[in-house]
Amino acid sequence: MSHSSEPREVPIYRQLAALYEQAIAAGSLTPGMRMPSVRELCQRHQVSLTTALQVLRRLESQGCVEARERVGYFVRELGGVALPGAREPDLHEPLAQDPRVFAGINERISGFLEKARRAGPLPLDLGSAMPAPSLFDAAALNRLAHGLLREQPDILVYGPSAPTTHPEFQQAMARHALTFGVCVAPADIGATHGNSEAVNLALDAVAEPGDVIAVESPTFFGILQAIEVRGLRALEIPSSPHTGMSLEALELAARNEPRLKGVVVVPHLQMPLGSVMPDAHKERLVALCVEHGLALIEDDIYREFVESPRVLRPAKAWDRPGDAGQVIYCASLSKSFAPGLRQGWMSAGRWQARVQMIKFARTRNMQTWSQLLAARSVDSPAYERHMRRMRAQLRIQREQAARAVARYFPAGTRLSLPPGGLSLWLELPVGISSTRLYDEALENGIRVAPGPMFSNTGRYEHFLRLSCGMPFTAEVEAGYRTLGGLLAAQMAELPVPRKVA
Amino acid sequence: MSHSSEPREVPIYRQLAALYEQAIAAGSLTPGMRMPSVRELCQRHQVSLTTALQVLRRLESQGCVEARERVGYFVRELGGVALPGAREPDLHEPLAQDPRVFAGINERISGFLEKARRAGPLPLDLGSAMPAPSLFDAAALNRLAHGLLREQPDILVYGPSAPTTHPEFQQAMARHALTFGVCVAPADIGATHGNSEAVNLALDAVAEPGDVIAVESPTFFGILQAIEVRGLRALEIPSSPHTGMSLEALELAARNEPRLKGVVVVPHLQMPLGSVMPDAHKERLVALCVEHGLALIEDDIYREFVESPRVLRPAKAWDRPGDAGQVIYCASLSKSFAPGLRQGWMSAGRWQARVQMIKFARTRNMQTWSQLLAARSVDSPAYERHMRRMRAQLRIQREQAARAVARYFPAGTRLSLPPGGLSLWLELPVGISSTRLYDEALENGIRVAPGPMFSNTGRYEHFLRLSCGMPFTAEVEAGYRTLGGLLAAQMAELPVPRKVA
Repeated sequence: MSHSSEPREVPIYRQLAALYEQAIAAGSLTPGMRMPSVRELCQRHQVSLTTALQVLRRLESQGCVEARERVGYFVRELGGVALPGAREPDLHEPLAQDPRVFAGINERISGFLEKARRAGPLPLDLGSAMPAPSLFDAAALNRLAHGLLREQPDILVYGPSAPTTHPEFQQAMARHALTFGVCVAPADIGATHGNSEAVNLALDAVAEPGDVIAVESPTFFGILQAIEVRGLRALEIPSSPHTGMSLEALELAARNEPRLKGVVVVPHLQMPLGSVMPDAHKERLVALCVEHGLALIEDDIYREFVESPRVLRPAKAWDRPGDAGQVIYCASLSKSFAPGLRQGWMSAGRWQARVQMIKFARTRNMQTWSQLLAARSVDSPAYERHMRRMRAQLRIQREQAARAVARYFPAGTRLSLPPGGLSLWLELPVGISSTRLYDEALENGIRVAPGPMFSNTGRYEHFLRLSCGMPFTAEVEAGYRTLGGLLAAQMAELPVPRKVA
Repeated sequence: MSHSSEPREVPIYRQLAALYEQAIAAGSLTPGMRMPSVRELCQRHQVSLTTALQVLRRLESQGCVEARERVGYFVRELGGVALPGAREPDLHEPLAQDPRVFAGINERISGFLEKARRAGPLPLDLGSAMPAPSLFDAAALNRLAHGLLREQPDILVYGPSAPTTHPEFQQAMARHALTFGVCVAPADIGATHGNSEAVNLALDAVAEPGDVIAVESPTFFGILQAIEVRGLRALEIPSSPHTGMSLEALELAARNEPRLKGVVVVPHLQMPLGSVMPDAHKERLVALCVEHGLALIEDDIYREFVESPRVLRPAKAWDRPGDAGQVIYCASLSKSFAPGLRQGWMSAGRWQARVQMIKFARTRNMQTWSQLLAARSVDSPAYERHMRRMRAQLRIQREQAARAVARYFPAGTRLSLPPGGLSLWLELPVGISSTRLYDEALENGIRVAPGPMFSNTGRYEHFLRLSCGMPFTAEVEAGYRTLGGLLAAQMAELPVPRKVA
């Protein structure tokens, strides 16, 4: 096969990627099938290793194929049912809302939570992005816990000495960070109450009431809440469901918004989009923040949930070390290993001393108990074994959920399967209200996370986040069927009835 | 003995109290001696039960006698060495500093902490007001912990469901509050990361940057830090070492400071003064806050450390219930039962919904683990038994420390033994610098808490807080001797050499 007849403007790797995309769409390559390896692509198309890799990465970023650790790339499985993929954001839309407008996300979130509370315990929670307890290694953690109580009988009555993080925790996290390419001194690591406190402290340290913080759009509501409660303004930057925040849009904002003080980015499996920022973007993002004096608050809570043949490095890996650092790195074991410990950590670069001071003023120190359990967990071989098992299990659950969406949800529903993680982000047909779906689902004993939870722009009313954290049982499948029925009823009421595309 | 010849203006109970005060000063009644009981006073002086009780309470508030639970009143023991008592504040001094001046407490505290960090591990810590681990019932807590891990093997991997506090914790704390006269609905109880987070959330809820918060002077530096980090201004109200915040001064502030939004009060064993607010003051304080629309943030972390024959009620007991409540009650098990859990709680009256929202945005939920351990601890009979033991042990330690002060510290050192708690608050001779003492003590392997940590006014340079949390060993006694030597050297350098009074 020769490419000499193709127009010169399109790089070879994009031409080849388009070819394979068509082959997948046409059914020549079917879901679950193994893609040619990099080496095979080189030989088959007489291209360089770099180009062959670019082809596979582009297909991956488009959601056509997926990488499986240590094995290779596979055509994405979607139960054989084709769902149109998620759309890229329109960069020509005006740069979101006026940040001086009061956002109101807290009222909105409290409203949703209050409705759920009034509904009482629900049979089916598709609203919380948490792995089910059965996906964790409770036995291993309990062994560590019993052992720690015996080894340090004073641990529950010994007050943590202020204001330092426990040295064993600092050292364990510093070693852990090295495994994903981040070098921080143990002394620069601070323990926090989950990732949430870390992000909140970062905001405390870098901005004052009235300042502006850029975030991905849509984004995790907790970030919008944190921005709002301290009188900051969220500026939502258009973000790709594949590659995350648009750096062009961010740069425009940096040039035009004098009160912009920082950016919060979730580089890996952005919630709710599921995007994974390419390395080149991370590098450019750090450079951009340095250039414009913006704090880069990196919320890296889902890194270990990405299915990737290589170890993913956070933006912090491109940061300058220590006091010169522009990146405030925030992470936690709450999603990956031990939700019940609420053990997070951060490394705040040039803001480290200020963060430590504010942390001390607000919540003093963490338990020694949870710090030592976390340190020993991360240091044990059980940790990586557990993460591999959890990733494999979550992949199965995501794919089962996606098949159920394809089977039960209205035609026109869009979904790109993310390369990992705990949830799916669906675009429903325009005109559908996910707020109404939320209310109706609650009446049917099901909790979902409607699009308006993830933005102040009003753009995501017809979007929906569904958790795939729990095993896909018959009850879960029945829940998807119920949701599909509720959506069909809404479709029937739309002024212009929509037909299957 | 008849009182008919006494001037009519002085109530009988004060005349009798003065009589006994003189008897103690004269050595007719010696330290450690049992005081006549209420009944004996009635018979001896032919006064009513109420008057007899007033006599003893007045003597107690003056630091002449002390109550021992279920036993009676005793002449205060001070090792037979007379130390002049703490002085009442001068209410005619101008109402402290201009609250618009930046306070700088965080820089100051960070500076002290950084010096201690650089000094490395110290042989003797008289700076932290924490009971030694040996004063706690670690075995009982560990039994609960092992049992809980067995009963709920998922507890460390189960994410707490947002945004509610665990119902078992809410119910246990609501029952616990009833035992000291406070009635709050379980649903109005929120778990927090220690007392610190509770006070911080209260400040978040009631005030905005630039607002003014009244505090006792001196006060715990953590409160000043919390006020400063969010851009509020602390207005320090003169406070009595015996009865706490001057309500006259507070009322004056309420009338004159339009931006005053709230008051933080530590009613029981105020840190560092050791004062206990009389019930009548608490009642008047609540009424004053209602009248002026001030939030009353009640930091009640030391209530259970008071030696008192009767159960002490916090100001919250005089509050109106539920949504009408003007008192934000904050407490914790960190000092009393399990420092290692960092388990606090609060009940925020009319601010409850707002506090809950901010808590959720900042640190999400507490561990189920620490909530259940705390709930079961408070519910167990071991709890009150432990508190009785701890109070008795701390009394011994306070008295030993006070004797060492009397023996080794310069003449002119003033000290009123507080009726409970973890520390002593000393007034050193004017001219002494406790900041200098802090530095010199560090060089000698001893950490203390100098007066300037507890105020922004600059009034407490010659004050010192010493912890009595640890058993009074020979090493501790040697530490007091060393401190005494360092102070003697400072005395010798004072421009006008002071002689023993």
